[in-house]
Amino acid sequence: MKYISILGSTGSIGTQTLDVVREHIDEIKVCAITGNKNIELLKHQILEFEPQLACIMDEEKALMLKNMLPSNVKTEIMCGMEGLIAAAEFEQSEIIVTAISGMIGLKPTVAAIKKHKIIALANKETLVTGGSYIMNLAKEYNAKILPVDSEHSAIFQSLMANDKKTIHKIILTASGGPFRGKFTDFLKNVTIEDALKHPNWSMGRKITIDSATLMNKGLEVIEAKFLFDVEPEQIEVVVHPQSIIHSGIEFIDHSTIAQLGLPDMRVPIQFALFYPTRVQNCYKSLSLFDIGCLTFEKPDIETFKCLKLAFDSLKVGKTMPAVLNASNEACVNLFLNKKISFLDIGNLNEKVMLLHNPKEIDCVEVILEAEEWTKRTIKELSDIGPFDGKEILRCHPER
Amino acid sequence: MKYISILGSTGSIGTQTLDVVREHIDEIKVCAITGNKNIELLKHQILEFEPQLACIMDEEKALMLKNMLPSNVKTEIMCGMEGLIAAAEFEQSEIIVTAISGMIGLKPTVAAIKKHKIIALANKETLVTGGSYIMNLAKEYNAKILPVDSEHSAIFQSLMANDKKTIHKIILTASGGPFRGKFTDFLKNVTIEDALKHPNWSMGRKITIDSATLMNKGLEVIEAKFLFDVEPEQIEVVVHPQSIIHSGIEFIDHSTIAQLGLPDMRVPIQFALFYPTRVQNCYKSLSLFDIGCLTFEKPDIETFKCLKLAFDSLKVGKTMPAVLNASNEACVNLFLNKKISFLDIGNLNEKVMLLHNPKEIDCVEVILEAEEWTKRTIKELSDIGPFDGKEILRCHPER
Repeated sequence: MKYISILGSTGSIGTQTLDVVREHIDEIKVCAITGNKNIELLKHQILEFEPQLACIMDEEKALMLKNMLPSNVKTEIMCGMEGLIAAAEFEQSEIIVTAISGMIGLKPTVAAIKKHKIIALANKETLVTGGSYIMNLAKEYNAKILPVDSEHSAIFQSLMANDKKTIHKIILTASGGPFRGKFTDFLKNVTIEDALKHPNWSMGRKITIDSATLMNKGLEVIEAKFLFDVEPEQIEVVVHPQSIIHSGIEFIDHSTIAQLGLPDMRVPIQFALFYPTRVQNCYKSLSLFDIGCLTFEKPDIETFKCLKLAFDSLKVGKTMPAVLNASNEACVNLFLNKKISFLDIGNLNEKVMLLHNPKEIDCVEVILEAEEWTKRTIKELSDIGPFDGKEILRCHPER
Repeated sequence: MKYISILGSTGSIGTQTLDVVREHIDEIKVCAITGNKNIELLKHQILEFEPQLACIMDEEKALMLKNMLPSNVKTEIMCGMEGLIAAAEFEQSEIIVTAISGMIGLKPTVAAIKKHKIIALANKETLVTGGSYIMNLAKEYNAKILPVDSEHSAIFQSLMANDKKTIHKIILTASGGPFRGKFTDFLKNVTIEDALKHPNWSMGRKITIDSATLMNKGLEVIEAKFLFDVEPEQIEVVVHPQSIIHSGIEFIDHSTIAQLGLPDMRVPIQFALFYPTRVQNCYKSLSLFDIGCLTFEKPDIETFKCLKLAFDSLKVGKTMPAVLNASNEACVNLFLNKKISFLDIGNLNEKVMLLHNPKEIDCVEVILEAEEWTKRTIKELSDIGPFDGKEILRCHPER
């Protein structure tokens, strides 16, 4: 029996994790779940999986949730960061699925690492912002980190039984998003609705916008660098619109191992939960006949500058990737709230990076300070215009 | 230091094995080499690699070879099966590369297995004819079998760190050969020269014809069945003209792992020699950008019946795959000597299988008897026409 906590059980990865649990209900026991806002769904999950602990971020909502549950339900209800950390540290849980989105996932992940848990890592921000600090911490506390993201799971699966030192390059595939092949002139006028149409994967709003800007791939580059301990130059981003090759590794002997499959997040989720064992499921089998053709292109990093910024942030290191991540989080929010245009996301990210004075990371607080600094800077830039006083005004349709 | 014997050092795989040795001359020592006819090349190999033993099949040629060598050369020269077996059993050699072609490779491979050697298996006939007998023998004598063939190496590399029992299906790729997409009407009139033009791989004549008939893929299906202990229905042959995905495995969790690379036999040869370590080399890196597109098709087993016959032979089992292999060896010879047409290869193979009464294999002699029976049967069929007295006459352009 596997005992797990799911941080972010009401999100896209969280609900798919519970799908996996449903298929292996005799082998996986959900001990703790946490959600952000969706108390209705959290209630249903509590009734179905009967976890010992459930947490909702907002204190008021926690009270509402308590009142919504029948009196015979034994699940303890907690709220806020305290509840998140309780779920991450939950004694019985051996695997913590960090399906929570955003930098809020950092502290509970650190807490889980310190309790020697297996981290089924779906929270991008942990490694993007914490990088080598987190990897060293995991090493120190002997906590395994198993990637859940389809690309990193693919790389992880390609690496199995091979030595990290024999990696020549990582082939990180990207669907290219809804705007693949488009140029700046076209992107100037794209709407939120356009950007939310992902060709292959059904995901949350934030990550879907990140796919459209290629920031998502940039964040994955940063994660891959730390997870697999390679140099940024060893990561080759390959646009592969069919999303069948989920990523791979070319080794120093010029043999490439890759992981393929239909786009279905339940496969890497299940892999992380049962690692190192492969377990039968009822998902769809890959038919290369049906697919017929796989294509590959170079990413256009001039137009999609967020991807380039990710590589740049790695060259600087220290808090720079964390700042890029925080800046992007804020920018995507501004875009989704129609405060800035699609192209502003990259432009603003670039400006914030230029303004940042990177610091060495020796504890989580340094990362959180960098995040706070970024939020303040973004606010200033979007309130009073950018530091050169022009770009934001020019790109911002509502000003 | 790796100590190796190469059976068939003057052939295509043999010379490429020596290329690998050249690149790792401080790590690999060639103890014994064997050739079939090419004494000139064998002489050069002896002078370059200074093996302790060299063998040439023909006794007379062995004498000629001795006379061609300077008197200070210490290499012992042997001939015939005795020499082959001596090379296979050579005490100092830990790895035996069975790059010899044809059923003649069977006995020395068995000899090497019984001496607990690591078999770098490039001789198709060993597993095609010996199947589970050979696999059981290897188990009994604790002799590792490492495939050298690019497809089986790809499957082997995809399987690393996974359990054979978790294989859902093997994806065995095929270039489709020079006649991909052609139908019977076209194939009726193809010449030896047409059949020898392989689109991707530079190989020996026999295997190139086998690629054109898809018999090569059929033999690989048989080998894969025994090497990886799967049912024939678990092997999916996928025509993939670019030969970049060299094969792979879909596991029961619907995750597929595949091995990719430019077509270069030195990669799987090196992998087998250094297994489980991956070692740097100067071969060309895979650029998916340069390749641009990978395509996949179903094989046409009506037109290319040899592939279907391979699956049929596995259903019958026992000596049937050995008979198909021996029949095909004879048929390809007849074709290369302009005695039968291209399509006769499949037709004759089919007839021989129909005439064969399969026997259980409990020793090498049963396989060799089946081979003898096949040779006699082919001779009768091609001398007096086939058993229904029509097909050979009809298809044979010189009759």
